[in-house]
Amino acid sequence: MRSTRRRGRALALAWCVTLLVVAGGGPARAQDDPLPSWNDGPAKAAIRTFVRRVTTPGGPEYVAPPERIATFDNDGTLWSEQPMYFQLAFVLDRVKALAPKNPDWATKQPFKAALEGDAKALAASGERGLLQLLMATHAGMTTAEFDTIVRSWLASARHPRFQRPYTDLVFQPMLELLAHLRASGFKTYIVSGGGIEFMRPWTTEVYGIPPEQVVGSSIKTRFEMREGKPVLMRLPELDFIDDKAGKPVGIQKFIGRRPLAAFGNSDGDLQMLQWTAAGEGARLMLIVHHTDGEREWAYDRQSHIGRLDKALDEARAKGWTVVDMKKDWKVIYPFQR
Amino acid sequence: MRSTRRRGRALALAWCVTLLVVAGGGPARAQDDPLPSWNDGPAKAAIRTFVRRVTTPGGPEYVAPPERIATFDNDGTLWSEQPMYFQLAFVLDRVKALAPKNPDWATKQPFKAALEGDAKALAASGERGLLQLLMATHAGMTTAEFDTIVRSWLASARHPRFQRPYTDLVFQPMLELLAHLRASGFKTYIVSGGGIEFMRPWTTEVYGIPPEQVVGSSIKTRFEMREGKPVLMRLPELDFIDDKAGKPVGIQKFIGRRPLAAFGNSDGDLQMLQWTAAGEGARLMLIVHHTDGEREWAYDRQSHIGRLDKALDEARAKGWTVVDMKKDWKVIYPFQR
Repeated sequence: MRSTRRRGRALALAWCVTLLVVAGGGPARAQDDPLPSWNDGPAKAAIRTFVRRVTTPGGPEYVAPPERIATFDNDGTLWSEQPMYFQLAFVLDRVKALAPKNPDWATKQPFKAALEGDAKALAASGERGLLQLLMATHAGMTTAEFDTIVRSWLASARHPRFQRPYTDLVFQPMLELLAHLRASGFKTYIVSGGGIEFMRPWTTEVYGIPPEQVVGSSIKTRFEMREGKPVLMRLPELDFIDDKAGKPVGIQKFIGRRPLAAFGNSDGDLQMLQWTAAGEGARLMLIVHHTDGEREWAYDRQSHIGRLDKALDEARAKGWTVVDMKKDWKVIYPFQR
Repeated sequence: MRSTRRRGRALALAWCVTLLVVAGGGPARAQDDPLPSWNDGPAKAAIRTFVRRVTTPGGPEYVAPPERIATFDNDGTLWSEQPMYFQLAFVLDRVKALAPKNPDWATKQPFKAALEGDAKALAASGERGLLQLLMATHAGMTTAEFDTIVRSWLASARHPRFQRPYTDLVFQPMLELLAHLRASGFKTYIVSGGGIEFMRPWTTEVYGIPPEQVVGSSIKTRFEMREGKPVLMRLPELDFIDDKAGKPVGIQKFIGRRPLAAFGNSDGDLQMLQWTAAGEGARLMLIVHHTDGEREWAYDRQSHIGRLDKALDEARAKGWTVVDMKKDWKVIYPFQR
């Protein structure tokens, strides 16, 4: 009885495959370009070749779907990061929003500099100053409250150059790449130096990446009962910095597998790319080089934001893929299509 | 052209659904019990009812698949934890294996106690002693080396009572529950006080849970170059304790969503169950009560291992599901079928 049903099922499945392939629902055909915003060139070819190598059943470099892990840096790789990291714009806006309840900030650095938009004084406050601003705006509330704060900021904040929501400034070619990898059986992860809980509220909608596939920097949280209801309080204490040598650490901690492909744009991604490259078999290491001063921004070795220097040298020395934004991308943002 | 293809594809899909349902590959029928090792009773009914409530399309408590997160404690919930936590057996075996290279351990506590199997002296060394043993056996190697150590220990170690590999001592009814939840669109996670890298090497094979869905306690790691190759070194420093109030913290950190269902067996799981229960809509909170001194072990309020006291009271007060192992489970281990 059971084996009859099994045979019936196998037959039905075979029929389905036939029908779907005939109807064009099978493997993508050549005319269905999964990367329409990418110009033909070495970067696009490297992506297509890599995907073919690891997904061709029976091929010498075939990798089973569970092992198809792809990790993406966020700032400068999936969305823009100029004229300042978008999370820093969030910090400055939050300092302004919280200032009425903190009258001492008007005369106290680094808050005074943040309130007055004094970039020089802000820079002078250094890493310690930045950390103070971060804790004042990211801690002291529950995880649920912070989620609401991020969502409502994104709904109202506008990027100074494009006058659009920050989440509009994602790279159309990278959205296509994310979708192409997922359609090819990859699990796509963000591995960013940015705050994990700053990203999670919007990555599903914007990138198709769910909260559990976001790795980022974090502060500590504490479980407590508030009026009989459990909450997680965000504490003003660093937990983990997911940048530079922290990226492979974060990958092992959260994913526990070495990526097959990794995507970055700055020296902050170098170790993630090295860690990925050190695995066996076919791997894809890709760097987005910001070369388009007109449509986006052009910067690399000398930039304070997203500096790309050592990683560019290593990419060239080791034959990693370097995307020339200006040459390789037909459009930058979805709204330009 | 495109719309013709789309229509063709829709038609093929409709055919497939018909064929598969006719062939018996459609939704499970009543006679296909997904939990055959569970006796009929309130626990089994609670599981079936909960799954039906959250998966019935159009129903008032329907939850979309991405939100279907289920978290499972490991020790005492998915596998046994007597006469000692299995990871502690690993620690003691490793101390013995490493003793020849550490001659001073013969006279130095807590190592001497571990080598001599002196449970009393071991207990007297307290948490600090345990931590010393943990660091001596879990740190000082790369993540890849530790993976190999765990695998080879599991291949040779035998449980003292059953004389079988430790991974044989998993609970058959819980394996069925894991599979049933996954077949119902759930993503199943381990959230254990045990070491994350102690579990990851075998959870895919034993539970069908991949490395990226294992949350556990951890020590810190450091990215470094060793003879030109990047490695992650395991450091003798605690990173995160995924137990008690740490469980909701770990869930938020790694998953970023509140579970819809949580499964535990001890007071160490209480906060995870509270955190799960505090969400809106249908939730399932389940405790495995070790009541079978014959086929497994019987222990609860007075036990040093897996103490179940406060969580048992709270389960009864709040109507959470309590599994009576002796009554509710037809078999305990897969090898008893």
